[in-house]
Amino acid sequence: MPISMKNQAAVAGIGATAITRNSGVSELALACEAISKCLDDAGVAPGDVDGLVTYTLETNDEVEVARAVGLGELTMFAKINYGGGAAVGLVQQAAMAITSGAATNVVIWRAMNGRSGQRMGQGVSGNIISSDLIHWSWYMAYGMVTPASWVSMIANKYMNLYGVTAEHLAEVAIAQRNFALNNPNALNYGKPLTLEEYMNSKRITESLRIHDCCLETDCGVALLVTSTERARDLRHKPAVIRGVTQASTRGQEQMTSFYRDELDCLPEMEFAARRVYAMSGLGPDDIDAACLYDAFTPEVIMQLESFGFCKRGEAKDFVAAGNLRLGGRLPNNTHGGLLSESYAHGLNNVAEGVRLIRGTSCNQPDKVEHVLVSSGVGVPTGAVIFGKD
Amino acid sequence: MPISMKNQAAVAGIGATAITRNSGVSELALACEAISKCLDDAGVAPGDVDGLVTYTLETNDEVEVARAVGLGELTMFAKINYGGGAAVGLVQQAAMAITSGAATNVVIWRAMNGRSGQRMGQGVSGNIISSDLIHWSWYMAYGMVTPASWVSMIANKYMNLYGVTAEHLAEVAIAQRNFALNNPNALNYGKPLTLEEYMNSKRITESLRIHDCCLETDCGVALLVTSTERARDLRHKPAVIRGVTQASTRGQEQMTSFYRDELDCLPEMEFAARRVYAMSGLGPDDIDAACLYDAFTPEVIMQLESFGFCKRGEAKDFVAAGNLRLGGRLPNNTHGGLLSESYAHGLNNVAEGVRLIRGTSCNQPDKVEHVLVSSGVGVPTGAVIFGKD
Repeated sequence: MPISMKNQAAVAGIGATAITRNSGVSELALACEAISKCLDDAGVAPGDVDGLVTYTLETNDEVEVARAVGLGELTMFAKINYGGGAAVGLVQQAAMAITSGAATNVVIWRAMNGRSGQRMGQGVSGNIISSDLIHWSWYMAYGMVTPASWVSMIANKYMNLYGVTAEHLAEVAIAQRNFALNNPNALNYGKPLTLEEYMNSKRITESLRIHDCCLETDCGVALLVTSTERARDLRHKPAVIRGVTQASTRGQEQMTSFYRDELDCLPEMEFAARRVYAMSGLGPDDIDAACLYDAFTPEVIMQLESFGFCKRGEAKDFVAAGNLRLGGRLPNNTHGGLLSESYAHGLNNVAEGVRLIRGTSCNQPDKVEHVLVSSGVGVPTGAVIFGKD
Repeated sequence: MPISMKNQAAVAGIGATAITRNSGVSELALACEAISKCLDDAGVAPGDVDGLVTYTLETNDEVEVARAVGLGELTMFAKINYGGGAAVGLVQQAAMAITSGAATNVVIWRAMNGRSGQRMGQGVSGNIISSDLIHWSWYMAYGMVTPASWVSMIANKYMNLYGVTAEHLAEVAIAQRNFALNNPNALNYGKPLTLEEYMNSKRITESLRIHDCCLETDCGVALLVTSTERARDLRHKPAVIRGVTQASTRGQEQMTSFYRDELDCLPEMEFAARRVYAMSGLGPDDIDAACLYDAFTPEVIMQLESFGFCKRGEAKDFVAAGNLRLGGRLPNNTHGGLLSESYAHGLNNVAEGVRLIRGTSCNQPDKVEHVLVSSGVGVPTGAVIFGKD
């Protein structure tokens, strides 16, 4: 009989490069720096790593990274598709490998010159092949060629239906910016954001201002995942994986799931919530802090409903009451998130989830037993709950 | 403590399209046909599939395939890199998912218009980015731009050192061609190959003739992997996964691992052999038939040594004695393999491994308890041993 991944694996190391708008180095250099720092953080020798997982969008192949960092013999390597939707998928891959014995020390990473190189916010460009071409051709003809345009289709519907205003979106952006003001590594460190500044900022779509959209940055992030048992002997307190899943549902497309019966919710996130709560035996009441994927501010608000923190249509009031701030019900993206720290395709949000469990966030809440982290919204995605050992 | 994947999962369904040089349909259509046939073969409803794994080279994204075939909610999806090196990686992914509870019914597939579309044999072409560019740039300047050229670097060294002749290579090609003569689905069905014809055929490199090189074909192949327990209730005898691993070793590159201490052996295959024998508790003497990856004939000969069927330098004699034929010690690629059935990036070899356990190969040996299948040679790769329930 299959066993459960619950509590089998833990994150034992975090590494990250500086966050810039122009790293001046190759993406391979970013990957190697992040991975080396991650292994140092954990106290694991490169030769002990036997699993590697990254994004399909990562330009550095596993074997190039393995040779450059001096890793050993690999028994497991894989890539996950769908941009930021992959972040938690990497964690699940590592947990699967460790639970099943396929590998013992798995490094997951993402390194990207996301500002000086290919900018994700610019959307569909370059060569598009086969079924991707079929897919995007339905939308590009209408000028829908960027993530902001695709997300607005869902966000507009949701905002109109439930009376979500620009002030609600602003609260998400400002709460996370305030966190970034305590995070010297964040790209938006030292740059406060006021409501007035938010309101007067450039519109990207009808409903989204520039401060509703995540950063584009050059950076690398890596995490080491190992068995919970082994993690206990390493340098930091383990961030134990209580529950983890990938999630894709019927009618799922990449950012453009517009043919579903309901457009005012996130079916793949609701599915992820059911799975991750069932596996962990926990519920929304057990979650003390979160890193909800925040490529765009409305996505954070909608996820509060997907994961059961609010009923349908009530998340705007939850947000307006300051519940995403320190001292609120659910401090969210305490590092600044994709909006104000960096855009490492969501893997930096996973890293912050680990810090919250370690108690080392630059905005550490008083009590954190369990943290929820989600990956990309509107794409095949996933969710993980970290807990203390 | 991690458990072992041994005997936890089994292949319960096989599906394949016709094998042609010009399918006349999209790669998405090939994928859907193969997957639908695979589910019919197993007797599993599309809505019960919750895991999907394919190659990074696959142009069909998981969600496109899921919608087109009518699959349900997915809890696990991944892609494996390195062309034909991925084949067994897909099997390991499925076994990991099932063993760890991440998914219950995993479809693995590969669909490619490999002759009418992008031809793998033509090697490096199109856009090359980042670390791939660094990698290939060392070799392309010397005219090494095709798989045949890369493989020849290793094959020439091995052949010169151990006295392997064209006649030895021919025996691999002819043995598999003879198998294809009994396989109506094979592209080389009805096309016998004589030693004289082999000797007079076109040279692709100094040591490789065209009959030493695999086919380029349009085709799709899919397999359903589920728990061994559940497989018992389905339509066919399960092909149980006794042992499975991916494998990459130090100095590993993609096809061009020329800076290792030894060039007359396959370190990643030797590592795969150690892992897969250790996990299964089996050894070479327990293996009754094989599907050793056969993109090029010398690779088959060298793998006989990697997996312990012969000592270093002695595989040529093992081959010359007819041991790869029916009635020999190790009937190999009884469907014709990549050389004479089709080039589905090795997934068709995995499918034949399953047929050999079912007892339904078109060249079924008398006694088959265990079958060894390997994936791509000279790349990060893997090996699996299938056994009877």
